[in-house]
Formats: sequence, C-alpha cells, structure tokens
Amino acid sequence: MPSTAASTTAPTKRGRPGYDQQSVLLIAVDVFNRHGYDATSMGILAENLGISKSAIYHHVPSKGDLLKLALDHALGGLEAILEEPGATSGAADARLEFVLRQTIAVLVDRLPFVTLLLRLRGNTDIERNALERRRAFDHKVAGLISAARDEGSLRQDIDPRTVTRLLFGTINSIVEWYKPGGSLSPEKLADDVITMAFDGLHAKP
Amino acid sequence: MPSTAASTTAPTKRGRPGYDQQSVLLIAVDVFNRHGYDATSMGILAENLGISKSAIYHHVPSKGDLLKLALDHALGGLEAILEEPGATSGAADARLEFVLRQTIAVLVDRLPFVTLLLRLRGNTDIERNALERRRAFDHKVAGLISAARDEGSLRQDIDPRTVTRLLFGTINSIVEWYKPGGSLSPEKLADDVITMAFDGLHAKP
Repeated sequence: MPSTAASTTAPTKRGRPGYDQQSVLLIAVDVFNRHGYDATSMGILAENLGISKSAIYHHVPSKGDLLKLALDHALGGLEAILEEPGATSGAADARLEFVLRQTIAVLVDRLPFVTLLLRLRGNTDIERNALERRRAFDHKVAGLISAARDEGSLRQDIDPRTVTRLLFGTINSIVEWYKPGGSLSPEKLADDVITMAFDGLHAKP
Repeated sequence: MPSTAASTTAPTKRGRPGYDQQSVLLIAVDVFNRHGYDATSMGILAENLGISKSAIYHHVPSKGDLLKLALDHALGGLEAILEEPGATSGAADARLEFVLRQTIAVLVDRLPFVTLLLRLRGNTDIERNALERRRAFDHKVAGLISAARDEGSLRQDIDPRTVTRLLFGTINSIVEWYKPGGSLSPEKLADDVITMAFDGLHAKP
C-alpha cells in the first residue's frame, strides 16, 4: 500500500490545467457518494473528471489516497470541536449542547466528506482506521451525555447509551437530506435539532 | 431483465438439501449489507452459502431477484402499517405515535431487510422502484405530522418538513446499532424514541 501520510502533508501539486488536488478530491468524493466507494474505479473517476486515467495519477497515487484525504478532512473537523473551550469547560449540559451544535455545523460545512465517512463499510484498512477515529469521537460525546445525566440535566428513564445512539442517529441523518443554500440555514437546523432532542415536539400546554 | 413478479409469488423451490429460497435470501441480505449490493457478486454469494455458483441458480435467477424479494419484504411490512385502524382513525397525534411505534417494530422485526432498503443507492431499476415506494410511505407519515401540527398537538416553531426528516432520521438510524435479543427490548426502544422526540431529553424541573 502506498504511503498515505505523505500525500496528506505534501503541498498541492498541479497535474493538468484546471485541476488541483483539492478539486480532484471534491469530484472524487461526490462520485464515491453517488456510486459507493467500492463500485468506483479510477476509470469512472477519470470519466467524471473528463481527463484520462493516466492523468489522474498526476494528482493522486490511488483511489485509497483520495479516500484517506477525504476522511481526514471530515474527522479533523469533528475532532477539533472537542478541543474548543465550549467543549472543555462549564456544565456538562452546556458542553453537550455546544458539541452537538458544532457537530451539525461541521457536518453541513463539510457535507460530502462527512457523508462519505458515515457511509463507510470498513472493507479496507483506510476505512477501518477512519471508523476507529469516528468511534473515539462518539465515545467522548457519550461521556458528555453521561455527565449531563449525572448532573441531573437529562432525564433518568432512558439509558444513556440509547440516548447517545438516538442523538447521533438524528444528527448523522442530516447528511441524507440537507441541502446547503436552501431556506433552512445551518443555524436554524441546529436550533431545531436541539429543540426536538432536549425539549420535544409536543406543544407545551 | 428476468420477471421478478413471478419469483415473489412462486412457491418456495428447493435446490440443494439444507437450503430453501428463504434461507438463501437471508444469507444474501446479510452479505449485501456487509459488502454493499454493488460489490457483491453471485460468486461471493455462493462462497457465503458454501455452494457452487451454478447451485445458486437453483434457488433464484439473479442477484436482482434476491434484492427484489428482500425489498418487498421490508416495504410490505411498512406499507401494511398504514392500513391498520390505529393509523386510519383517531386524533392525528395518536395516529402519528401509532405509526412511528409500528415502524420501529417492523424495522426491528425485519432488521436486515429494512437495513438493505435504507442503504440503497438507486443504481438499478429494482432499487429505484423500491425508493419510490419508500418515498410514498414517508410522504404519508409526513401528512400525519402536518395534521398533528394543524390540530395543535405539535409545536409550531419547527417546519413540519424538518420534523419529518428528523423523525425518520432518528428512527432509520436504529438499523445501524440495534441488536435484537439484547437488554433493550423493541418496546422499550419504541418508548425511548417516542419520549425523546415528543417530550425531549431534558429533566423536567
């Protein structure tokens, strides 16, 4: 397997006029999301880029390197949330709300990249490594949920593991339907998710 | 394309001792879910069944027929919910809760089949037809959500389209983590989803 660490730190290298590695990556991620990573060949990628198969190799050594770059972009955004002051100090309930809002913001801002991350099957080492990092992120959020419950902010009649699963389920599903630039802003979307999850949909009497 | 209607109504035909069409289907759905439908060949299926590639054709004419049978099982379960009295009479709020609970019950009872349905990419006619039926189901549930809002049961500050997306996101994500036979029963799971979605996670003061 080629070294993927090198390609994430190497400066952007131009192959053909009109494409740099970043624009190749964006198109590749879109193709992966439409056809599935496994079903996408370098030939299909070349076709979508409108360049020859050999020209792709000017930009990136392999399909796996494109995947690695894309997943690093998704995971890097998520992992950075947990380092912010809003995630590290204050009441657990407020830290949890901060992390969920920021997760939605990253998800919307890096939508195709997070979509790719969430659809991984784990057939290759690159995928398994990314799933491991995703699990570590989820585990830290689960810790915040337990802490918010322990401090009495969250209801006691639902197992915190179920709460974690349902909250991630709600948030992660956003990649399946959200259209950036439409009438629903990322901020209103985050408000709606927080409102439904914490206060519920029932009209208050 | 072979006729898929015939295979859904034909009586179960035994090919080799130890396998009938239903057990071939169960294993095939499991393989589709693990590797992705596109990435699964009849050869991979044969390997998982421990039979020869030609022996598979005793049970089913093509990979597409297995997909069609599996998706019919998932969609048939969901569509039947909307015909039940709990879905057709009473206040919209109660009908909505009934439909969501039953959706969770079908999802858990037919877990691998619904998982397959929810992961479809829509690359073939069989997939596109199933996605069309799924959209029709979702559309009817969206109608119930709007009706519950109009009758004043649901809060007015979230667009009913967003409510629909978030509720389905929460429920559909269950296929990604729920383990039947564990400590969380399907009934408690449904209670938890309804509680979070309608009453919220915050402890009541």
